[in-house]
Order: sequence, then C-alpha cells, then structure tokens
Amino acid sequence: MKIAIAGSGALGSGFGFQMKKSGYEVTLLDYWDDHIAAVNKNGLTVTVNHQTERVNIPMMKPSEATDQFDLVFVFTKAMGLKQMLEDIGHTLSKDTIVVCLLNGLGHENTIEKFVPRENIVMGTTVWTASLNGPGQTTLYGDGPVEIQNIAPESKEKAKKVVAILNESHLNGHYSKDVQFTTWRKACVNGTMNALCALMDANINEIFSTSTHQSLLKGIVSEFAALAKVKGIHFDLEETLEYIYNVSRKLGSHYPSMHQDLSNKRPTEIDFLNGLVAEESRKVGLKAPYCQQITDLIHAKEDILGVAR
Amino acid sequence: MKIAIAGSGALGSGFGFQMKKSGYEVTLLDYWDDHIAAVNKNGLTVTVNHQTERVNIPMMKPSEATDQFDLVFVFTKAMGLKQMLEDIGHTLSKDTIVVCLLNGLGHENTIEKFVPRENIVMGTTVWTASLNGPGQTTLYGDGPVEIQNIAPESKEKAKKVVAILNESHLNGHYSKDVQFTTWRKACVNGTMNALCALMDANINEIFSTSTHQSLLKGIVSEFAALAKVKGIHFDLEETLEYIYNVSRKLGSHYPSMHQDLSNKRPTEIDFLNGLVAEESRKVGLKAPYCQQITDLIHAKEDILGVAR
Repeated sequence: MKIAIAGSGALGSGFGFQMKKSGYEVTLLDYWDDHIAAVNKNGLTVTVNHQTERVNIPMMKPSEATDQFDLVFVFTKAMGLKQMLEDIGHTLSKDTIVVCLLNGLGHENTIEKFVPRENIVMGTTVWTASLNGPGQTTLYGDGPVEIQNIAPESKEKAKKVVAILNESHLNGHYSKDVQFTTWRKACVNGTMNALCALMDANINEIFSTSTHQSLLKGIVSEFAALAKVKGIHFDLEETLEYIYNVSRKLGSHYPSMHQDLSNKRPTEIDFLNGLVAEESRKVGLKAPYCQQITDLIHAKEDILGVAR
Repeated sequence: MKIAIAGSGALGSGFGFQMKKSGYEVTLLDYWDDHIAAVNKNGLTVTVNHQTERVNIPMMKPSEATDQFDLVFVFTKAMGLKQMLEDIGHTLSKDTIVVCLLNGLGHENTIEKFVPRENIVMGTTVWTASLNGPGQTTLYGDGPVEIQNIAPESKEKAKKVVAILNESHLNGHYSKDVQFTTWRKACVNGTMNALCALMDANINEIFSTSTHQSLLKGIVSEFAALAKVKGIHFDLEETLEYIYNVSRKLGSHYPSMHQDLSNKRPTEIDFLNGLVAEESRKVGLKAPYCQQITDLIHAKEDILGVAR
C-alpha cells in the first residue's frame, strides 16, 4: 500500500507521520524546498498531544515522485488542488484512491478530471496542525476524520481508508452524509472566517456585533438555497445554531482566513462564498450576499497586496 | 428675514458666516458648549479661499433660541436631524422655510413632521468645510448649492432661497430635478464612502481593486431599482460613470464615513444603503447588497466601540 501526501504542510505532515508510524509506505510531497531538505536530512519531527517523535519519511517535489500510488491524500490549499493533481498526474493509476479533506466546496469536480469518480473519497476533519519550521509539525486534537465515497458503489473503498486512518490513530469515521458535513463546515468558513478576515476581528468580536445574525442569515440562506437545488441535505436553522456553537467554543481565536490575510496569502473565498455565487448563477439562483462577500475579500487581498 | 443655522458645525458655521456678512440676521444653533462659548466671546472666525475674517453672530443651544425663524438651514448629521427639529420646534411657524442639504435619503419625511411640505426645500452641495477648533471654520470650494422645492407649487420659495445664497456668494442654483442630484450623491456615499470606511482604505485603493466594479454595480443597481418604483429619474450607467469620475478627482482622500469611524463617531449608513434596504422591503423589492453593507458598517461601528 503506497500512500502519498500531496501537500505536506502542517496537517499533511501530521497525517503522513501517523500512517508511517503504523507501518505504511508513505511519501511526502510538497513544494517548499527548506521543508523537503530538512525532512530528508533529519527526518520529520511531529508533536502529537505533547509527545514528540521523529520518523524518516521520503519527501520530494510532486513532479519528482516516481512511484505509482495506491492512495493519495490531498492536503493543499483549495486553490492549489488542480496544480497539485497536474504535478502528480504521472503517479496516478486507474486504481489510485484520492482522499480530499480540503476546506470548501466543489473539489470533487476538480479531482474527477484526474481519477474516476468511483475512486474519490471526500471528507472533513477537525484535526488541526501547525508547522513549527522546516521538518517540524504539531498535530492538535483527536479528530475525527469523516469520509465517504462519492460514487454509491464505492463504499468498500471508503471503508478501507477508514480502517487505515484508525490503525494510524487518526480517528476515522465512515460518514453516511459527508456532503451535509462538508456544506455545514463550508458555512462556518463562509461566515465566521470570512467576516473575521474582512473586519480584521476575532470570533468573539464578530459575534458580539448587533448585526451578526442578519449577516449570517443572509449568507447561509444562499448556501441553503443552492443545496436544495442540488439535492443536498441542509437545514438552515440547525446550521446557524451549529455556527453559533462553534463561535462560542473558539471565542478569541482568529480563523484561518484571517491568518491568510495577515500573512498576505490568498484566501479560499472562491471555494466557499465564491463557489456558492457561481454555482447559484448556473442554476438560475441569485446569491448577492455571497457574491458581495467574495468581492470584498478579494478587494481586501488586493489592498493588502496579496498575489493571486 | 431671520435665518437660523440648525447645526453649526464646520459647514453650518461657514454658511451662517456668509449670510451674516451679506446683512442677514443669522443665529447659529448647536450643541457643542465650547464652540458656543467661543463664538459668543470672540465672534466666529472663518477662512474662505485663503481669506480669514471674523464676524459677531449670536449662538446658542437649539432649545434656548427665542426667535421665530423665517428660514432654517439644517446642517446636522443625518441621524441628528429629528432631534434637532424637536429641539427647535418652538421657533418654527407655519411659514418657516426649512432647507436641507444633508447627505442621505428620506430626510423630507422627517422634516414634514415639523413644517408643511410646501415649505421644504431640499438640495445638495459640494461645498466642504472643516472646524479648526471652537469658533474657527474653514470653508472650501465654490459650491454650487443646488436646491428645489418638493411641493410643485412652492417654486418661488426655493427661488427666494437661491437668491439669498447668491447674495451670500454661496453659488445657489435652482435645480429642476434635485432628487436626481440627491440620489446620485447618495450613490457616491453609499459606494465610495461606505467601502472606504469598511475596508479602511482611501478612494484610490478601493478603485484599484479587481472587484470594485462588481461591488459598485451590486449596490447602485439597488438604488436604481428603488428609484424606478418611486418614479425618480435615475440612470444606472450614468451614475456609475459619475462615481468613477468623482473617484478620479478625489484620489488619495479618505471620505467622511471613514473619518467618522476613525473618530469613533456613528456613520450615516442608515440614511444611505440602510434606507434603500428598508424602503425596498416596503415596496416588495430585495436589496441584499445594501442590507449587507449596512450590517457590515454597523458591525464595524460595534467592533470599534462607537456609541449609537
């Protein structure tokens, strides 16, 4: 079982480390030269729940991989997915399973240009991680990873991935409705993350404003309307309640999209609100709240001089 | 001809000064104690086009005025208009003409609760001013002031005001369609000002973003749709072109709404995008772009700790 981590930043490195420790043949792929050099020289050092260990794992640039992989976990930023799949195209066979846990919506449409739909496993995770420097990662939390095949006939493939995740102590779960989980998570990112990034505020500050309920409802209603047309299970009130619960847990945290802008990196807005706006247009719906948030975030990227 | 300036901040003081110099009996009304004390002690010092002069004008709090006025210029912030009219109610007769040059939409609905519609004169001006300290104002530009009666039969009243403005070198013009001018100016404020305030950016920065055209079109289209229902002359493309022209002239300027937030003062958003959202709802239209901008500006006020 040859496994590749396509995008071995903080979370990808952490997942690769866990599977390598469980005995799988893991290859880390990434574009960052210093990280690759450090891992090849000193191995990968990972801290999980206050325990630090080092393992040796081969690491290289995506285009330099020579194996054919049986299983590929993509762990790029949303906007880097297509380029990554192009760069590892030569390592994919008709049997390669691709697992995608990325933030955002619509990634299966990108992946199916590279492997058959029956080999695509989609999911979400609440594991988080941070890269402490080249070759050094900290993994936080205890999961879970919820995944599901997108082709109805491929349940066994997803279950095989769940087994690998569990052997590797990554807390895998077979989900009966991963689209529900994915869309709900996208709503968190499309409201909480986007508003914190736009307003340069933390979660508490946003959720203490007099207008946050109106802002959330405007945005999430458009996710709901599109989900309905697409036949995706979605409950507006439950999703709003879920976002409020997440906001209460995370309090003074600055979400990832805020961190992206602080570090002058492009955001994933095109795969959240931007995707809802675009897909809504295609089916004759209007999504002005999502369109305007997308435009505002891009305007902010431009003002901050973020290269896109 | 007894004239009151109801709201004698920078611009109001400047207008009062010009009319006093032309021989009119002018009273300045305002709430700021230091300003009132300075004017009563040392007179009002005004700089117009690099010439500085001092005149003596009586000034007091609105509730302390004892005259019945023939002509009242309201120069409050949009959200202060109602309170001001309540405070000077005892100085208004059935013949008092009220002239309103405030930013924003819908002020005639507030004013007509205090004087008959046939005594209301609405308008816009491009004069600007800044208060240098208590009793000291600088007036910039050369106008014009464009005004019109809102009751068709009251043309002569508006023309009388135009004459007074011209005698006072304030460059008055009788407008044949002051609603057109007012709505066009509101569109400038509802796009350029609101976006600069929200994004903490100057005009050049906003108009250099890749998404500014989409943002402007979204917002202005909702002004246009409401104007159409209300029978107000409005040209979407022409208005967008007008906003682009203003943006090119003003370049590195931070508009007034940005200054409001910088000084932790409430903005006039409820009388611009907020009013369009509210009035649209009343006539069965949707105005999500304007609603969301209003919510975002209020969220920003809340985050900055602005008292509203």
